[in-house]
Amino acid sequence: MIRFGVLGAGRIGKVHAATIAGLSNSSVAYVADAMPEAAQALAGSVGAKVASVDEVIASDVDAILICTPTDTHADLIEKSVQSGKHVLCEKPVSLSVERIERALPIVEKSGKAVMIGFNRRFDPNFGALKKRLHDKEIGEVELVTIISRDPAPPPVSYIERSGGLFRDMMIHDFDLARFLVGEEFVSVHALGAALVDPAIGTAGDVDTAAVQMQTASGKIAVITNSRRATYGYDQRIEVHGSGGMLRANNVHMTTVERADASGFTGDVIKNFFIDRYVAAYAAEVTAFVNAVEGGTKPTPSIHDGLAAQKLAEAATESRRTGQAVRVF
Amino acid sequence: MIRFGVLGAGRIGKVHAATIAGLSNSSVAYVADAMPEAAQALAGSVGAKVASVDEVIASDVDAILICTPTDTHADLIEKSVQSGKHVLCEKPVSLSVERIERALPIVEKSGKAVMIGFNRRFDPNFGALKKRLHDKEIGEVELVTIISRDPAPPPVSYIERSGGLFRDMMIHDFDLARFLVGEEFVSVHALGAALVDPAIGTAGDVDTAAVQMQTASGKIAVITNSRRATYGYDQRIEVHGSGGMLRANNVHMTTVERADASGFTGDVIKNFFIDRYVAAYAAEVTAFVNAVEGGTKPTPSIHDGLAAQKLAEAATESRRTGQAVRVF
Amino acid sequence: MIRFGVLGAGRIGKVHAATIAGLSNSSVAYVADAMPEAAQALAGSVGAKVASVDEVIASDVDAILICTPTDTHADLIEKSVQSGKHVLCEKPVSLSVERIERALPIVEKSGKAVMIGFNRRFDPNFGALKKRLHDKEIGEVELVTIISRDPAPPPVSYIERSGGLFRDMMIHDFDLARFLVGEEFVSVHALGAALVDPAIGTAGDVDTAAVQMQTASGKIAVITNSRRATYGYDQRIEVHGSGGMLRANNVHMTTVERADASGFTGDVIKNFFIDRYVAAYAAEVTAFVNAVEGGTKPTPSIHDGLAAQKLAEAATESRRTGQAVRVF
Amino acid sequence: MIRFGVLGAGRIGKVHAATIAGLSNSSVAYVADAMPEAAQALAGSVGAKVASVDEVIASDVDAILICTPTDTHADLIEKSVQSGKHVLCEKPVSLSVERIERALPIVEKSGKAVMIGFNRRFDPNFGALKKRLHDKEIGEVELVTIISRDPAPPPVSYIERSGGLFRDMMIHDFDLARFLVGEEFVSVHALGAALVDPAIGTAGDVDTAAVQMQTASGKIAVITNSRRATYGYDQRIEVHGSGGMLRANNVHMTTVERADASGFTGDVIKNFFIDRYVAAYAAEVTAFVNAVEGGTKPTPSIHDGLAAQKLAEAATESRRTGQAVRVF
Repeated sequence: MIRFGVLGAGRIGKVHAATIAGLSNSSVAYVADAMPEAAQALAGSVGAKVASVDEVIASDVDAILICTPTDTHADLIEKSVQSGKHVLCEKPVSLSVERIERALPIVEKSGKAVMIGFNRRFDPNFGALKKRLHDKEIGEVELVTIISRDPAPPPVSYIERSGGLFRDMMIHDFDLARFLVGEEFVSVHALGAALVDPAIGTAGDVDTAAVQMQTASGKIAVITNSRRATYGYDQRIEVHGSGGMLRANNVHMTTVERADASGFTGDVIKNFFIDRYVAAYAAEVTAFVNAVEGGTKPTPSIHDGLAAQKLAEAATESRRTGQAVRVF
Repeated sequence: MIRFGVLGAGRIGKVHAATIAGLSNSSVAYVADAMPEAAQALAGSVGAKVASVDEVIASDVDAILICTPTDTHADLIEKSVQSGKHVLCEKPVSLSVERIERALPIVEKSGKAVMIGFNRRFDPNFGALKKRLHDKEIGEVELVTIISRDPAPPPVSYIERSGGLFRDMMIHDFDLARFLVGEEFVSVHALGAALVDPAIGTAGDVDTAAVQMQTASGKIAVITNSRRATYGYDQRIEVHGSGGMLRANNVHMTTVERADASGFTGDVIKNFFIDRYVAAYAAEVTAFVNAVEGGTKPTPSIHDGLAAQKLAEAATESRRTGQAVRVF
Repeated sequence: MIRFGVLGAGRIGKVHAATIAGLSNSSVAYVADAMPEAAQALAGSVGAKVASVDEVIASDVDAILICTPTDTHADLIEKSVQSGKHVLCEKPVSLSVERIERALPIVEKSGKAVMIGFNRRFDPNFGALKKRLHDKEIGEVELVTIISRDPAPPPVSYIERSGGLFRDMMIHDFDLARFLVGEEFVSVHALGAALVDPAIGTAGDVDTAAVQMQTASGKIAVITNSRRATYGYDQRIEVHGSGGMLRANNVHMTTVERADASGFTGDVIKNFFIDRYVAAYAAEVTAFVNAVEGGTKPTPSIHDGLAAQKLAEAATESRRTGQAVRVF
Repeated sequence: MIRFGVLGAGRIGKVHAATIAGLSNSSVAYVADAMPEAAQALAGSVGAKVASVDEVIASDVDAILICTPTDTHADLIEKSVQSGKHVLCEKPVSLSVERIERALPIVEKSGKAVMIGFNRRFDPNFGALKKRLHDKEIGEVELVTIISRDPAPPPVSYIERSGGLFRDMMIHDFDLARFLVGEEFVSVHALGAALVDPAIGTAGDVDTAAVQMQTASGKIAVITNSRRATYGYDQRIEVHGSGGMLRANNVHMTTVERADASGFTGDVIKNFFIDRYVAAYAAEVTAFVNAVEGGTKPTPSIHDGLAAQKLAEAATESRRTGQAVRVF
């Protein structure tokens, strides 16, 4: 039985806490949040106690779930592992590559499991695709295409603190590209523009972007992002290999289709990220719990978090300079 | 808070009991089963007590969930409503139309809610299709096509006690056809053969069947069934109307597709009925709980159970005689 | 080089004549039509001469293409074969089973090739499906589902002379069902109603219909027809067998798809029968020419034409009486 | 009636000549080819005479169709327009941007119509997509994704003379990207590798490539190419805009689909370029003939040919240097 302290009782904290409480081999012991009512509500629903962040970290729990704002992640990871706790931390570890690099030796010295919440690796569709790649169903991977479009942009106030599209949104796709290809990308070239909302451009960011990357062996990944898709939350992967192509298509609201004079119309796709990835979030937490219980190191690790962040930083720089950036 | 007594701790009893226990406005108070260990295991998992069937019906619960063998349903419905309990009973009410007709006045006199577990009405896909029919999205319904194929036939020993394919399997489709068309069918013609397994024919039943039915106003429904589909649990509906066509396609295991020299291959469809209809089962129980709490009568009612059984009986007779049978 | 005399310069006569003229091993020598301008126009476009029907039949051509009104088909077949000509005749041979039965011995005595224009057998999609059935790709055929819906009903004046939906429209599907199953159907049950246009009902016909048929070995075919589909010319086949399912889906106008807040919308399907079956018409004529040149008997033969007509007649009777009809 | 002289009686010359001969307002008068038998065979099939290239250009024809090897295109265009003939020339105009720039003033001074055979603009699917973009069905274009994969690489001997993948294969996609976006791309970044066949790398070329480009207003196009796809000739376009997404999917061999324990398998896609683009080739020639007859200037023009070549040259350089290249 893995007992958790949950830091952060917001939207994603609640999703994860419910999964932990529902598993037969885990439970939530404490919840901390800057807003006492939020902490109390979540604690009540999972049978936990409310405590401060420091109390939770110092408690006798086995693991800390970090769902607080991004700028606290690295500090909390360090404190948690130094206090002998395993950690499941929401992505990203930090907007700063340098900050992650400082945390790394502390994590390694602790010997504790630190897993980063790149939930998409745990999506049943993407996971099945990855497994089939691993089984060489289409031979060697040559070209990965990732399309990711949000239903609607977040408020500009959010964007201003986000670190920019490459660190905030495309970070998921950088992780997925590494996950699917299984090699490090050594060159990154990025394009971007504020086509959806000029205010995003004024804030110094982009809302439409494309990145192409290549590994040392020549494998290519192409990622495109948009902050707005009128038809839902567009999440697709396509991998072209020596033996064929594997792709994961979108998840539609229902399987209902209408035919009339306007054509054949299928349903829109799921448009809320928690709804789209509900199974992924549950599988992610389950994987962490099982790894900790089994004494193995869960992935994606903090090294994966660092690698994705390096790609995001390279893309950010490439977009600024117009030139390709070498990494690793 | 609606408190339930659960009769029958088998596969479907466990699914429903978990839903009841998970809702905020319902709970399981008692579980009864002929096998004490099964009752104990289920009671333990939902925080209920074990009792005998008679004790449960006589208890202070608000509602009885009947998940026992079919031949006990009608008796248990009668006893439950006479004891002042609402009832959610698994389909079918009885293999005998006459037996249901005897239960009907007892149910009506009691004034209690009696809902029959035709789960497919609650499938999110079929439910969305029904709502869009109701909204006249394709005008007037003219022709309904229902395709239902099981992954594999049950044991012949099961088939021998099942009442035959029309009563055991197609009963769901009879209910769906009534649900979608919104009128009673007055003529039924059935064909059938034992093409999958000769032993099913030897047992007096068929494993492949087709039924076509017509309402007084001329609307037509065509249902085909097979006891075996190599590609999963095939569950499709198509409604053709004056303004177009609405259909609910199958639910695939994942959205992953492979392309290679053999073509473009999507995943098989879900092949276990509880997995395929997991959302439907939950929605069904939720609808019952909310109806009882709100003091309204839930559907499908015992009248719907009777109507579907009449169609099944007519189809059975039609298959035997080769001629169309008039009902209602 | 097979030289043709073409009887009938209407819509389908023009399509076939252009195919004949375009093949390397066939040509059109004569064209006859009750309307001299129509005959002249077609003859001019394919390098043929105009002549009367009797002159064409008496000429030195190898084969007669019969594209005249249905009620002339049987007479013209008889005269053509008696004059030593091979015949490709548009479907149906006759609206009367009895009339076809009278023509049969004359055709057989002549030893000439007589092929009936059931064009759908030659559709590349349906043809590929049939070949794969023949190769036992899904094992033994158990259940065939044919859906056929016209874009819009013909004028009531046409319907009054058509012999009714079963002889005029479903005749294609009766032929396809025999083609796909490879056995004769021995029982036929039909339902029908005038749901699209009451005037069709007043004219004694139906516009929406369902037929289910069974072979002596138990195989089942289900056919549904509508005279109106708002989304195009709906032409689908699905065959369920012991090893799986094979289906031929519709042919869409383009492969373009739009996604927006209303969903994912593919194009309508082809809605003009000549456009939908352009490749089938060409393949049909080519098959006839090659068979005649090679000295083999082309199919579908006049026997196939007779068999389909028997099923249409049985369905017409079944719809009238409400009872199943035995054939063969 | 537009009379043509055809230069080059190879594969594509034959396709175009048959179209010209089949149109009501065009004909082939002369055919020239270095191989006399090829010229004779084609001339015979379309009712034309054989002549030398110079004789054809000097003849009284209205238009010259240039289907000779690429390195002759620019010379033949110049000679043809100087001889007062309109020109339809196969792509590319030249592998050298500089050579096209030299031909440009000669073409412009002549006032003759010069159209370049970028056939994909005339594909019914891509053409319909373009029209719907033009009609603002999805608002403003933001992001174009073009996927193009050949079934199998050409011989290395061909690749050595081809100018490289960007000039030989991706040239089509550069033209399509300009066609779809309607603005010039000002920056180009290319990646490439020889992943399919090391011999292609040894020959100095790549077989797998990705290019991303941006217009001055920020619009982005992403193109990926592979010289090998095991499942056919993969040709897809996807345009994301402010109001939604439009995409043109692949063209499959048939609409037949099989379901069995391995999943739901649709047919492979068309895998021979002439077969895939048969309608496009015909529409292209028809557009040229109609423009010449109507006295308008057909597109894509030689300016379009030049623009695509500039992008190909920029991509070639970018792949070599690893850096983005500015164009226009």
